[in-house]
Amino acid sequence: MFDKLISPDSIAVVGASSHPNKIGYVVLENLKNNGYGGRIYPVNPKGGQILGFKVYPSINDVPEEVDLSVITLPAEVTVKIFEDVAKKSKFIIPIAGGFGETGKEGKERERKILEIAKKYNARIIGPNTVGIYIPSTGVNTALVVPERSRFPGDGDIAFITQSGALGLLTMDSVSMYDVGFSSFINLGNRVDVNENELLQYFGEDEKSKVIIMYIESFANGREFMRVAKNVSRKKPIVVLKAGRTKRGGKAASLHTGALGGSDAVADGAFKQCGVIRAYDEIELVDYARALAYGKPIEGDRIAVVTSAGGVGVVTTDYIESEVRGIGMKMAELSDEIKRRIRDEVVPFASVENPVDMTAQASDDDYDGVLAALNDDPNVDAILVYALFQTPLISEKLVNIITKWHREGDKPIVVGTIGSEFALRMMRKFEDNKVPVYPSIERSVKALRVLRYRAKLLEYLEGVE
Amino acid sequence: MFDKLISPDSIAVVGASSHPNKIGYVVLENLKNNGYGGRIYPVNPKGGQILGFKVYPSINDVPEEVDLSVITLPAEVTVKIFEDVAKKSKFIIPIAGGFGETGKEGKERERKILEIAKKYNARIIGPNTVGIYIPSTGVNTALVVPERSRFPGDGDIAFITQSGALGLLTMDSVSMYDVGFSSFINLGNRVDVNENELLQYFGEDEKSKVIIMYIESFANGREFMRVAKNVSRKKPIVVLKAGRTKRGGKAASLHTGALGGSDAVADGAFKQCGVIRAYDEIELVDYARALAYGKPIEGDRIAVVTSAGGVGVVTTDYIESEVRGIGMKMAELSDEIKRRIRDEVVPFASVENPVDMTAQASDDDYDGVLAALNDDPNVDAILVYALFQTPLISEKLVNIITKWHREGDKPIVVGTIGSEFALRMMRKFEDNKVPVYPSIERSVKALRVLRYRAKLLEYLEGVE
Repeated sequence: MFDKLISPDSIAVVGASSHPNKIGYVVLENLKNNGYGGRIYPVNPKGGQILGFKVYPSINDVPEEVDLSVITLPAEVTVKIFEDVAKKSKFIIPIAGGFGETGKEGKERERKILEIAKKYNARIIGPNTVGIYIPSTGVNTALVVPERSRFPGDGDIAFITQSGALGLLTMDSVSMYDVGFSSFINLGNRVDVNENELLQYFGEDEKSKVIIMYIESFANGREFMRVAKNVSRKKPIVVLKAGRTKRGGKAASLHTGALGGSDAVADGAFKQCGVIRAYDEIELVDYARALAYGKPIEGDRIAVVTSAGGVGVVTTDYIESEVRGIGMKMAELSDEIKRRIRDEVVPFASVENPVDMTAQASDDDYDGVLAALNDDPNVDAILVYALFQTPLISEKLVNIITKWHREGDKPIVVGTIGSEFALRMMRKFEDNKVPVYPSIERSVKALRVLRYRAKLLEYLEGVE
Repeated sequence: MFDKLISPDSIAVVGASSHPNKIGYVVLENLKNNGYGGRIYPVNPKGGQILGFKVYPSINDVPEEVDLSVITLPAEVTVKIFEDVAKKSKFIIPIAGGFGETGKEGKERERKILEIAKKYNARIIGPNTVGIYIPSTGVNTALVVPERSRFPGDGDIAFITQSGALGLLTMDSVSMYDVGFSSFINLGNRVDVNENELLQYFGEDEKSKVIIMYIESFANGREFMRVAKNVSRKKPIVVLKAGRTKRGGKAASLHTGALGGSDAVADGAFKQCGVIRAYDEIELVDYARALAYGKPIEGDRIAVVTSAGGVGVVTTDYIESEVRGIGMKMAELSDEIKRRIRDEVVPFASVENPVDMTAQASDDDYDGVLAALNDDPNVDAILVYALFQTPLISEKLVNIITKWHREGDKPIVVGTIGSEFALRMMRKFEDNKVPVYPSIERSVKALRVLRYRAKLLEYLEGVE
C-alpha cells in the first residue's frame, strides 16, 4: 500500500531551492547524497539547474506522473498549487507548518488539501511534518544540521512518530550505536495517512522486524486496537504514548492538538492488543532492539555471567526485586552445569549464579561458560556482561557471544560498561544484531521485555 | 587523617617489576605518567633500574620512611615481608587477593598483617584491592588495559567502593563525559581502613563536594549512621547498597563476604542519616553530579524549556506521574512571565509550561526565556533541554545555560539527546560543572535528587 512512498521510482521536489539553508535544497541534497536511485524532478518557476538537476518551472512540466511529491513551500502557497501536484502524484508530503496546528484558518487549509487529494486519489503524509526517512532507498525529506546530527543506517526498526523532532532526536542519539531503521515516518498533522494504515503496512513489511511508535493521541483508538492485535501476533509493537498524565495531556494538546483519554484505559487496551509500552525515548529503542534481534524468553529463570562481582550483585538485585527491578528469578544452576563451569574458570571464580569469572576471565572462559549455560534446563535466558577492561579479554569476545546468540538455544542479552572502547564493541554487537546495553538497568529491562513478549504471544494465541 | 595517603610525599612500590603486564610495572608507569610529584622507590631484590627509577633490593634499603607502600606481590610473600614494610610506611596497600576471601588460611594472613600494622602504627587499605586513584596527585595503583579503558580526570566526587571492578568500570564509563573525581578508594577486604573513616575524612575534604559509595555490607552500620548523619549536613552522600534482595545478598556474600541485613531496615536508616540511595552505577554518578554542581530544589514546581514539543510532553509525564515518574509538579507560570516569554520566542511557540520554543529557537531565545523564568516566583527549578540539531542553535547555548546556572537564582538541570555532537557539548557542560544528562528520564531523576537533598537538609536541621 505504501510501497511507492517507501521506495518511489520518481520524486518531485516542489519548491526546490538553490539556497543551501532551505528545505527545498536540503531534500534535493539528501536524495543526491544518500543514493536515491530513482528519477528526481525539482520544481521552481525560475527553472535552471540545482545540484546538477534540471529544474522544471511547474509540476505540470514534469514529464511523468510521480510516485512522491515533496512540497517545501509555505502553507498558503502549498494550498494554491495543491491541485496541480495532486493530479500528478501518488503520495504528497507537504512539509510546511501553518495548517491545523495554528487554528481555524489552518484547519480550512487542511480541509482543502484533503478534498483535493481525495479527488485525485493521492495520499497525504502530514502536513506540518519532517516527512520520511528511508535509509535503504535514500529517500529523506528531513532537515537537520549535518555537522550536529546524524541519520542512522538501514535496519530492522520501523518508526512511526507524531512528533518529528522527538523522532529525529531519537534516531540521532542511537545512530551513535549503529542502530538501524527500515523506515521513519512523521505523521505530522495526520490529515490523511494515519498510524493505523502504516502499522498495518509495516506489519507485512519483511524488512521491519519491529514497529515503534511515538503517539500523543490516536487517530482512531478502536481501529488501532484491531490492527495492533493482528500485527502484534506477527511482530512486536512498542508504543511511547506521551501525554499519559493530566498535565502531560495538556502539553500534548498544545503540541499536536491531541485529546488524551485516561492512561489506565490506554494501559489496559495496550495489553489486550499485544502492544508493549515504552515510557521514554531510551526505552523505545532499547526495547525495539531486544525484540528485533532477540528471542522471547519462555520462563523467569535468568543466568548472569560477569567478570566483575559487583556488577553481578547489582544485576541480581534488579532481576529479583519487585520494587526496583523486574521481579524475575535468578536461575538455580544444575549441579552438572556448575561442575562444567568450574572446569572452565579460574579457581577463585564463583560458579553460583551470577557466575563471576573475575578479572582473570578470558575469551575462552566466556565461551565455555556460555556453552554450559546453553545446556542447562534450569536456565530460560542469559544476561552476559562483556567487560573489555581486563587483560585476558579481547575483541574476539564479541564473536563468541554473537555465536551463542545465533546458534545457542537460549535468548541472550549483553550488557557492557565503559567508554570509547566499549562503545566501539557495542557497535560491533549491534552490527551483528545482538541486543547490547550500556548499563545494568537497561540490560535487565531488555530481559523483562523479551519475557513480556513471550507472555503476550501466549495471551494472543488464546484470544480470537 | 588520610592526607598522606591521598597526597603522599613518597611511595615505595614493593614488588616493582620490569614486565609491562605486571601490576608492579603498571603502578610505576602510572606514577611516572600521571604526574606524581613525590619520591618513588621501586623495591625488588634484583635491583637495577625500571622506567628510569633506581630499584632498591629491599624496603630496608629505602633511604626514608615512606608515606605509602604499595605491595604488588602474592599474598604469601606479602605476609612475609609485611613487617619490614610496616616499619617504614604510614599507609600500606597490599594489592593481592588470596586473603580472607579465599577461606581460613587467607583469614589467618589478614590477622597477621593487621597485627603487624597495628604494632607499627601503619594503616592498611585492602588487601585484595585495586587500591586508590587520586587524579590530582597522580597516585594510581589500579591495573587496567589502557587501550580499552580510561581513567577520569580531577573533579568533585569522592568515590569509596567495596568492589574495585565496579568502581573502575563506572569511572571508565563516565570519563567519556569528562566527569572528574577527587579520590577513588577501593576498600577491598577492608581488614583495617573502612568506609566510615574515609567518609569522615572526605566529609572534611574541601576538594570533595559529594561522596559516593558502593557497598555490599557495612563494616559497622551504627558507626556509619553516626558519621553519615554528621557528614550529610555538610555535603551529600550517595550510596549504592548492593545485595538489597535476598538473592542479591547471597551473591554479595560470595563476592565480598558481605552479610546483608534487611533492605527495608537499610532504607529507613539511610533516610535517618541523610543518605541518598542509588540503585545502580548510572544513578550513582548521575546523582553525584547533580548534587556536586547543582543547588537543592526548595519546592516542587518545575519549569521545562524545550525546542522539541514531544520531549516536553514526555518530560511533563515523568515530572507529574507518581507511577512512572517523580511525583513533582509542572510550575504554573505567572502571567507576566508568560508575556515576557511571548516576546522572546517565535509566534507559534508555546509559552505554557513546558515552554516549547520549536525548531525555530535561537540561542538568544533561550537566554530570554531563562531570564524570564529566573524571575518567576512560581518556579522552583528549571529543566532546560539543550538540543543542538536545529539551525539557529550553536555551541554558544552552552555558555548561555552555564551563565544562568551560575548566576541565576533557580537550580538548573540540563537535558540533551543526540550523538557525537551532543556528547561534545555534554563535555563542555561537564567542564563548566553544569549537571547535564543524555536522556529525559535521567534529567528528571536529577531534579528529584536535588529536591530530596533539600528535604534531607530540612529534616537534619530538625534533629540533634
